[in-house]
Amino acid sequence: MERVPGSFGTSVSFALRIFQLGFSSTSLISMCLDYDFNEVTTFCYLAVVMAYVILWSILHTLADTYSVLLKQLPQKPRVLSIVLAGDVVLSFLSLSGACGAASATEMLLSIDEPMCGDKRCIKYQVSALLAFLCWALFLDSAIFNLWSLYSLFH
Amino acid sequence: MERVPGSFGTSVSFALRIFQLGFSSTSLISMCLDYDFNEVTTFCYLAVVMAYVILWSILHTLADTYSVLLKQLPQKPRVLSIVLAGDVVLSFLSLSGACGAASATEMLLSIDEPMCGDKRCIKYQVSALLAFLCWALFLDSAIFNLWSLYSLFH
Repeated sequence: MERVPGSFGTSVSFALRIFQLGFSSTSLISMCLDYDFNEVTTFCYLAVVMAYVILWSILHTLADTYSVLLKQLPQKPRVLSIVLAGDVVLSFLSLSGACGAASATEMLLSIDEPMCGDKRCIKYQVSALLAFLCWALFLDSAIFNLWSLYSLFH
Repeated sequence: MERVPGSFGTSVSFALRIFQLGFSSTSLISMCLDYDFNEVTTFCYLAVVMAYVILWSILHTLADTYSVLLKQLPQKPRVLSIVLAGDVVLSFLSLSGACGAASATEMLLSIDEPMCGDKRCIKYQVSALLAFLCWALFLDSAIFNLWSLYSLFH
């Protein structure tokens, strides 16, 4: 059976996971560059979500590398369902984190401009933007895996 | 063919849409009770999203009422796909609006407590909570319609 490009174990999925890993780690680093980010709950939440995204992406990058380079991993409905569920949950978490951080930064800028000195708010904005891009990639992965799951039954 | 409970044109879907309509309109009213909400972009965004949710819910409540009481509407793949796409898009918009508003309110409370006088922030929090519940209901609708779309091909 031909595999859906972008589904678990393909080279497109590998590329997607590499981008996810890059975006999420840059987002976390950008947030952690400001030592006071843990004073605001929203920023802490985004950092925790990005840490989970990094773990998930590393796991999938390894699985995809193994599948592409060494031995093609089988696409079982149970495995695809778990990957799909993880992608959907993490996409919601990324979106909520990104929106929360973007909104909190906008509030900081409008109310307390001096607090945004030393390019603090730009770091938060970059972090939120990258989390938003992670959400878009998760959505792509979820759609490809759903399509693959559907095609398994046909 | 038996219909999936909760999918387009069933009584469970009607109940879901009624709750959506209730939550979204209460969220919009709670936001508009504060005259200054339009000073903050995030709150304006949530109000606009809730207005769209109200329109979508009214449309579906009417369609479901017609389908349940008068004449069962056919579940065509094209109709179900449009309903599913609308539900997914609005679920993302509701979640982003809810997270943004919740985060902005938290920021207001932590930085500028006096601005939250006259129970302003409680109104914002109620609005965000109801938008969050709308997201949960949209997710339910989307899952039921996806299931129904899947069962149409089997």
